[in-house]
Amino acid sequence: MSAITSLLVSVEELASERLEISGEPYRHLFRARRLACGDRLRLVDGEGRARWARVAEVGAKSAWLEPGATAPSQDPVRRVRLLVASPRFQRATWLVEKATELGVAEIHFLSTERTPREYGEGNSRRLERIARSALEQSQGSLLPKLSCGCSFDEIPRLAAGCEVTWYLDTTPSEEGPVDTSGTDSTALVVGPEGGWSEGERARFEAWEIKSWSLGARVLRVETAAVVAAAWWLTSAGGEG
Amino acid sequence: MSAITSLLVSVEELASERLEISGEPYRHLFRARRLACGDRLRLVDGEGRARWARVAEVGAKSAWLEPGATAPSQDPVRRVRLLVASPRFQRATWLVEKATELGVAEIHFLSTERTPREYGEGNSRRLERIARSALEQSQGSLLPKLSCGCSFDEIPRLAAGCEVTWYLDTTPSEEGPVDTSGTDSTALVVGPEGGWSEGERARFEAWEIKSWSLGARVLRVETAAVVAAAWWLTSAGGEG
Repeated sequence: MSAITSLLVSVEELASERLEISGEPYRHLFRARRLACGDRLRLVDGEGRARWARVAEVGAKSAWLEPGATAPSQDPVRRVRLLVASPRFQRATWLVEKATELGVAEIHFLSTERTPREYGEGNSRRLERIARSALEQSQGSLLPKLSCGCSFDEIPRLAAGCEVTWYLDTTPSEEGPVDTSGTDSTALVVGPEGGWSEGERARFEAWEIKSWSLGARVLRVETAAVVAAAWWLTSAGGEG
Repeated sequence: MSAITSLLVSVEELASERLEISGEPYRHLFRARRLACGDRLRLVDGEGRARWARVAEVGAKSAWLEPGATAPSQDPVRRVRLLVASPRFQRATWLVEKATELGVAEIHFLSTERTPREYGEGNSRRLERIARSALEQSQGSLLPKLSCGCSFDEIPRLAAGCEVTWYLDTTPSEEGPVDTSGTDSTALVVGPEGGWSEGERARFEAWEIKSWSLGARVLRVETAAVVAAAWWLTSAGGEG
């Protein structure tokens, strides 16, 4: 239920027997949300672990929680990594929010030939904050790993360890959806609206990365990324 | 290719032999995009028809196009209608943009028990403009039918004519994805993050509308709507 409150804490805090909540989380939970003594909430550590916790004490500036039984992680069975040609920052913010809601494990923003783009330090931190609140809102436990301004050459390294890697074209194609069965970890490389350059396509071939298209529509990069990730995550069925 | 320029015109204009482009479309195409005499573009009428057109003449304040051969519609084979518990307006804007990119046929915003909300005239028109530009950007031909502030009681009427109707819960469930095969038209009723009220669930039962969940995550209403629509549209495979 979305009525359950999830709070992202550190690995150490989740493992503790009693922890103090102050500052912004305190204001949000005990002023805005008005949690009170005895109320139950869900603590997650951003690494896939979750515990139920009880509000033990509420003070004027901080409150104390007592973590208890393990809670379901509610992370997808599958691991999906998104490697995405960096869209305009505003579009990147909602890509991160939506991908986090869905349970994407990693999001890496690429600077490509047709969309050379970096977000800078402040914006990268803003994306982290968006992911944190989207994780709490969606009741997940695994905070996606984020990186910005990756180079095209880093794709094989960023996709390393995934069973399959696909590169998506947002340019038209007649191919239908791919068979996702029996695949637990996938890297999806999503190109810009203008498509990949010939040189980039050649690199994908050299790396033996296959192409996949969502159809004849020209989707914006962030739309293609979210839809493709959802395709792999929801077609897996059950949840962890 | 996103290099192709699509322009949404009226049914009459699409059927004409020569049409004049002025005002904002003129500035966009001939100042910003710098189209010139002889250039080819794609005209769509928002009702699923498309024609190739040639730039015949470019003046200081307007230009003339000559529509020619029929162009592919690039609309999905399937018809998906979204009936969505109205999210905050900002979230509705991107729901409309993304659903239009994907080729959703109709988007109706509901005022529900837990999210009674209407957008007002100005905002409704803004959603129309967003859909129009998303249609041009995505190279589709069918402009989604939009309506705002629909009441819960209107659901059967809004879903009438669809082969199947599902109501989605954004609250956790263990159900997996549904089998979409052999279904050409679907109505998806998407609830608020807080879930449907007991009374609303009872109405769905009375209407014999089945429930479907995208999994254990709590998705925002606009995320659930876009992901569910994409699920039905992409799992259909081929394009029209």
